[in-house]
Amino acid sequence: MNNLAIGVFDSGVGGLTAVKAIRKIMPNEDIIYFGDTLRMPYGNKDKLTIINYANQNIKFLESCGVKVVLAACGTVSSYLSKVSSKVKIFGVIKPACEAAIKSTSSGRIGVLGTYTAINSNSYGTCLSRLSSEIKYWQNACPLLASLIEAGHISPQSSVLRTILDFYVSPLLHKNVDTIILGCTHYPLVNPVIREIFGKEFTLINSGLESARALKALLKAQRLKSNDSKNGKATFYCSGNEKNFLANIKLFLEKDLEYEVKKIDIEKF
Amino acid sequence: MNNLAIGVFDSGVGGLTAVKAIRKIMPNEDIIYFGDTLRMPYGNKDKLTIINYANQNIKFLESCGVKVVLAACGTVSSYLSKVSSKVKIFGVIKPACEAAIKSTSSGRIGVLGTYTAINSNSYGTCLSRLSSEIKYWQNACPLLASLIEAGHISPQSSVLRTILDFYVSPLLHKNVDTIILGCTHYPLVNPVIREIFGKEFTLINSGLESARALKALLKAQRLKSNDSKNGKATFYCSGNEKNFLANIKLFLEKDLEYEVKKIDIEKF
Repeated sequence: MNNLAIGVFDSGVGGLTAVKAIRKIMPNEDIIYFGDTLRMPYGNKDKLTIINYANQNIKFLESCGVKVVLAACGTVSSYLSKVSSKVKIFGVIKPACEAAIKSTSSGRIGVLGTYTAINSNSYGTCLSRLSSEIKYWQNACPLLASLIEAGHISPQSSVLRTILDFYVSPLLHKNVDTIILGCTHYPLVNPVIREIFGKEFTLINSGLESARALKALLKAQRLKSNDSKNGKATFYCSGNEKNFLANIKLFLEKDLEYEVKKIDIEKF
Repeated sequence: MNNLAIGVFDSGVGGLTAVKAIRKIMPNEDIIYFGDTLRMPYGNKDKLTIINYANQNIKFLESCGVKVVLAACGTVSSYLSKVSSKVKIFGVIKPACEAAIKSTSSGRIGVLGTYTAINSNSYGTCLSRLSSEIKYWQNACPLLASLIEAGHISPQSSVLRTILDFYVSPLLHKNVDTIILGCTHYPLVNPVIREIFGKEFTLINSGLESARALKALLKAQRLKSNDSKNGKATFYCSGNEKNFLANIKLFLEKDLEYEVKKIDIEKF
């Protein structure tokens, strides 16, 4: 048993999809979340910058006392083997790829991710490693995370609908039956994707899948919190804390009280 | 006479609209350009961050030896009185507002800018100061600079058309006859705005107007370069230099050779 918190970080609000899942399937666990809103988006930055940012984010979470870190960010997860961490670090790519392979019946999988994640071919490499029979098509979506971060998540948003059509349609034309949402921001617009394109394919939520894999890890390594305790979540960001609080309320349970503290991430 | 270069900076490629104008109307002047592509976009960051970034950018340009600095960025120009500079520093807001007031016949002006520039009301304050008879409407466009930076500048881009419609239409419904493009990225999609909305209003290019004002300043202060010399442009960025070079070729004269050097802006 280990009552320390799970550390979670992302460039912004995307990782909240993982937080939501952790709170649902591991309600006893404390969570310390860091959203690097000052330096977002990550998805168009280069490898060395991403690794440097990830190392700083992990150092900050370690300074808060965490038992494990979830890099709830497809871009960072693409370079996870290059980052330094004292505690066990966990990414979203393998859990998402495993879930996609389990879901597909045609063996045809689509991947949506940031420019850097897709260019690194991290999802493609992982899918090929897990199964030699999978065919996959990838599409970089350089604007989608920024759009979601700017609050365009309503089905009424003509901008969101046009962008989704632009990115999702080419994958559906390849007759994929499963699409990995390889950036943790994207599941925030799942309902809009469903409304536009119907339900004839499975969407893999990388935040949710990584939370499930994390649960299995904590159990296997006897790192779970005391079952009788209620987990609490603490939030930090590097940019404007009011904007971040508004986003938390948009994406997590609306009726809870949340506190957000701003930190200077460059110091870590 | 002063043969030192003009320093120009922006968060990314937007300031190239000013570079293009300087090269056209002041062909003898050398230009040193810095695009802070690592830390872009600026338009959703808060005041203190913007001022800090601007101070670093100016220090870098000063270290190259420049006679004047043009902050070719609507967001930075909104806080220009707060930044530190050893040389004369120049922004885009006043030149753009003066040009808009000169252009309007109805006295109804629209302003498009980044979230931070519009929220600071820098354009509104300047317009009111220059003329008490002007009515203005402002619209923040949190995605437009990122969209342009990602290369969506073609009239065929359905994403660009939808976003422009979303931001420009509300201003036209107010019957403005002049629209200030208050972020230097926006003039890069002038032809698309014209194609969608026609020509019955004037678009004010803040990059071009600031270059014109700069020309007048250099003349008045006897800072012009030797008339017989051919000006050269040198480019620096903080992010990926290959992407930046591709953008330069997209926006400036295609047949010239450009060299881009990457610098570590955090050191300044």
